[in-house]
Amino acid sequence: MTPNIISALGEIVSKKNILTDPVHLTAYSYDGTPVMSRMPEAVIFPENAEQISAVMRLANAERFAVVPRGSGTGLSGGSIPVENSVVMVLTKWNKILEIDRANLTAWVEPGVITEKLQTEVEKLGLFYPPDPGSGKICTLGGNVAENAGGLRGLKYGVTKNYVMGLEAILPNGEILRIGGKNVKDVAGYNLRDIMVGSEGTLAIFTKILLKLIPKPQKSITMTAYFDSITDSGKAVADIIAAHVTPTIMEFLDNTTINCVEDFIPTGLPRKSEAILIIEVDGKGAEVDEDAEKVFKALKKNGSTFVKVAGSAEEAALLKEARRMALSALARVRPTTILEDATVPRSELPVMIEKVKEAAKMFDVTIGDFGHAGDGNLHPTCLTDERDKQGIERAHRAFDFIFNEAIKLGGTITGEHGTGLAKRDFLENVAGNVGIDFMKKLKLSLDENNILNPGKIITSKPKCEGPLPGRREDIPEKPHGHTH
Amino acid sequence: MTPNIISALGEIVSKKNILTDPVHLTAYSYDGTPVMSRMPEAVIFPENAEQISAVMRLANAERFAVVPRGSGTGLSGGSIPVENSVVMVLTKWNKILEIDRANLTAWVEPGVITEKLQTEVEKLGLFYPPDPGSGKICTLGGNVAENAGGLRGLKYGVTKNYVMGLEAILPNGEILRIGGKNVKDVAGYNLRDIMVGSEGTLAIFTKILLKLIPKPQKSITMTAYFDSITDSGKAVADIIAAHVTPTIMEFLDNTTINCVEDFIPTGLPRKSEAILIIEVDGKGAEVDEDAEKVFKALKKNGSTFVKVAGSAEEAALLKEARRMALSALARVRPTTILEDATVPRSELPVMIEKVKEAAKMFDVTIGDFGHAGDGNLHPTCLTDERDKQGIERAHRAFDFIFNEAIKLGGTITGEHGTGLAKRDFLENVAGNVGIDFMKKLKLSLDENNILNPGKIITSKPKCEGPLPGRREDIPEKPHGHTH
Repeated sequence: MTPNIISALGEIVSKKNILTDPVHLTAYSYDGTPVMSRMPEAVIFPENAEQISAVMRLANAERFAVVPRGSGTGLSGGSIPVENSVVMVLTKWNKILEIDRANLTAWVEPGVITEKLQTEVEKLGLFYPPDPGSGKICTLGGNVAENAGGLRGLKYGVTKNYVMGLEAILPNGEILRIGGKNVKDVAGYNLRDIMVGSEGTLAIFTKILLKLIPKPQKSITMTAYFDSITDSGKAVADIIAAHVTPTIMEFLDNTTINCVEDFIPTGLPRKSEAILIIEVDGKGAEVDEDAEKVFKALKKNGSTFVKVAGSAEEAALLKEARRMALSALARVRPTTILEDATVPRSELPVMIEKVKEAAKMFDVTIGDFGHAGDGNLHPTCLTDERDKQGIERAHRAFDFIFNEAIKLGGTITGEHGTGLAKRDFLENVAGNVGIDFMKKLKLSLDENNILNPGKIITSKPKCEGPLPGRREDIPEKPHGHTH
Repeated sequence: MTPNIISALGEIVSKKNILTDPVHLTAYSYDGTPVMSRMPEAVIFPENAEQISAVMRLANAERFAVVPRGSGTGLSGGSIPVENSVVMVLTKWNKILEIDRANLTAWVEPGVITEKLQTEVEKLGLFYPPDPGSGKICTLGGNVAENAGGLRGLKYGVTKNYVMGLEAILPNGEILRIGGKNVKDVAGYNLRDIMVGSEGTLAIFTKILLKLIPKPQKSITMTAYFDSITDSGKAVADIIAAHVTPTIMEFLDNTTINCVEDFIPTGLPRKSEAILIIEVDGKGAEVDEDAEKVFKALKKNGSTFVKVAGSAEEAALLKEARRMALSALARVRPTTILEDATVPRSELPVMIEKVKEAAKMFDVTIGDFGHAGDGNLHPTCLTDERDKQGIERAHRAFDFIFNEAIKLGGTITGEHGTGLAKRDFLENVAGNVGIDFMKKLKLSLDENNILNPGKIITSKPKCEGPLPGRREDIPEKPHGHTH
C-alpha cells in the first residue's frame, strides 16, 4: 500500500484514528483463531457512517482490502487481515442507542459488548438470550457478523433469531437500511438474514436493532455425572424425546473435567467419563415439572449423581465449569485448536465416539465439550504450533471429525463461522451449486472483492476473468485442507 | 409461444401432464388476489426434479417465463401468470416423506396441504405452528415461498422460523440443497433464508425440511368485547407490557363482527366497537397465570365482557369467528380487497384509527381485523370491480393506509408478500439501495429473468441496460450518525 493511500485514509478518518506503526499493527494481526495471523497495512477507527463509506469508495478505487472487526474474539479467522488490507475497528461504536420497552427492542451500535446489553436490559426485566462464550468481551456487531450462538441456544436460538433490523455500509459505500420493529415483515427479499452470519464480507454494520424478550422468572440448574459417555448422550436424547426444551444442556468429557478442575477446583468428579450441565427456565410450576422430567431421564440413563443447585450462586458455579472449559484447556499446551462440528441431535452419541476415535487414531489430545442439546460439539485439540508433526496430526484428526460429521448429516460449523479456518471444507457441505450461489451473491455486492476477501469463499475479482466457481471450473474433488 | 415449444414441454413432462385448452387454462389464470388475472400459454404438472430442471433449461433457451404455484391461495398475485408464461403446478407433490421424532423434523413435498401435516404430526404429540388462514387448502411449498404467517405467529413465529432445509431447482435448472437437521449451522452464507419468502422468483422447491415442536399441553381461549376500539388497542399493549406472549391475539372491528354474525350467527356482540380473541397456551400452571394477567389487562382497559371458553369446542367456536372473517366480508360485495399493512406493536392503536380515517376520507367500506399482537392488520375493502370509481377510491384508501403504516415505522406486508399487488410500494419501504440489492440478487441467479418475472421487483434482463437504482439516483441526504 502506497504512502499516498495511507495518507488519504488518514484524511478520511483523521490522523488520530489511524495506526501504521508495526508495533500497533501487530495487535490487529490475529484474532481468537490459533496458528493464523497476518500484518495489516494500517488500522483505522472510523467515527461515523460517512467515513466508512468514504473508506469503501477509496478501497474500490485503489483496490485494497478492508477487514472489519470488533473485539477479535472470532474462532474461524474472520477478522484476520488479508494481503494488502486495512483493518477497520468498530469497538468505539459502543453506545446502546435505545431500549424500547413497548416493542421489546434495542437499537445498538456494533461495538457494544454483548454482556453490557444483557446487563442493561435485565435491569428492566428484559432479556437478550444469545450468550457466546466470549460474552464479556465480544461485540454485538461481531455476534451478528458470525451469527453467534452460545449456551442458551437450545431453547432461545442464536443471534439470527434476535436481529430485527440493520443499518449497514455495503462494499460500494452505499448505506443499506433493512428491517425494523415490525414482528412480521415480508416486503421483498429477506436481505436482513443474508447479512447475519456474512462474516464481514457483505457489509459493515453501523446500527443493529435487536429483539428482546421478557426475562425468565425462574430457573433450575443441575449437574449430572456419568461413568459412560454413551449414557450421557442417551440421556440428552431422552430429555428431548420427553418434550422438554432446557435452556442449557452442556456436555464435558473427562479430559475437560480434569482441566477445569486443575484450573479452578470446584469439586468436579475427576473420574467421571462425562458430565451434563442442564438448566430449565420459565415462569412457575412448569419449571419444576420440566426439572422433574430431566431428573428422571438422567437417572434412567445411568447418571451416578445429580446435583441440583440450591441457590443462584450455586447455579452460577455449576455453569462456570462449562464457561471456563476453553480457558482451562488452553492452559495445558501452548496451542489450542477449538472446532465446532455439529450433527443432528440424534447423532450426538455417535459423534462423541468419533471424536474419541480421532484422538486415538491420530495420537492427539482432544478435550471434548459443547452444546449437547444442539448436537454442537467443541472438540479441542491441545497441541503446540512449533511441533509441525503434532499440528499435522491435529489437522488430520479434524479432517476425520469433519468428514464423519458430514456423513452423519452434520455440518462443519455450528456457531463459529467459516472464515479462513473452514473455507476449504465448505464445498463438502454446501456443494458446487451452493458455492456457486455464494460466489454470485458476494460478487453481486462487491464486484472488486475488497470487503474481507477470501473469507468463507475464495472469490476473485470479476476483472480477472469469468466468474470463478461456475460448474465447469470447480474441481471435482474437494480441496486439500490447510488451516 | 410457438407450437414447437409447447410440444417440447409436453415431451418433458409427458402429454398427460400438460394443459393447453383455454377452458382448462382459465382455472390457472388467477389466484386469491382480487382484480388481477392473465391467461398462461400452458399449464404443466412435472413429476420429478429432473423434469423441472429440463423445463427451466428449455425456458432459458426459448426465453419463456415459468410461474410456479401450489393451491393458488396467495393474496399478492405471486402465482398469477405473466406474459408468455407457463404455469408449473406442484399440488401433486403431496407426500409427507418423513417425520423424525428424535430430531423433531419433517421432510415434505411442496404440495402437501398445511393442515394435513398439522394433523399428522399432532397424532404423534408434535406441532407445526404456522397456520395461515387458508390452512385447509394451501400448500407448504406456497407457505415457504410466501413466508406465510397465521394466527399463532405471535408466540410461535412464521414459516421462516420452521424451515430447516430445502431442495430446490434454480432458474438455470441446477439442483440446490441447503440446510439439514442441524439446529445450528453457520457454514457459508445463509442461502436458506433467502429462499424463504422469495415468492417463486429464485427457485422452485422440491423438498422441504420443517422443524416441529412438542404440542402444547394446555390452552385457554377467551373473547373480550370493547365499546371503544382505542381501548382494545391499549389492552393489547398492556398484555405485551405484562410480559405475556399469547399464542393468539386477534382483533375484529364492528364491521367485521357484523359480517361474521350475518354469515354464521354465534352470538357476537353486534354493537361492540371491537372484540379481541386471545389464546394462551403452554404446559400447566403457567397457562392459568398468563390467562389471569390477560383477564386483568382486558378489564383494566374497559372491556365490557370477557367470555372464557369452557371446552375445546367452545374455544374452537371463538376462534372460528376470526377464521371466517375474510369469507364473511367477501359475501357482502362482489369484490374484496384484503391488505396486510403492519406496524410496530406500540403503534397499533394509531394504525387502527388511520384505517377508519381512510374509509371515511375515500368513502369506502373497510372491515378491519387481524393479528393485533403482531401489529399486523388486514383492512379489507368491500367493493365491486365493475365500479371503476369505487375501485379507484379503494386504491387511494390503501395508498393512504400504506403511507401511514410506513410513517409509523411499519411495512406494506406482514405476511402476504409483495408479488404483483404491492410491487409498486416496495421502494418506499426497501429504499433505492435495498431495491438495487434485490435486483442484483435476482439477476445473479436468473440472468434471463425467466422464473416468475415481474413479481416483487420489476427486474429487466441485464442486456437492456444498466441496473436502475444505482447510487447516482439516491437522494443525497446523509443519515446523521446519532450516538
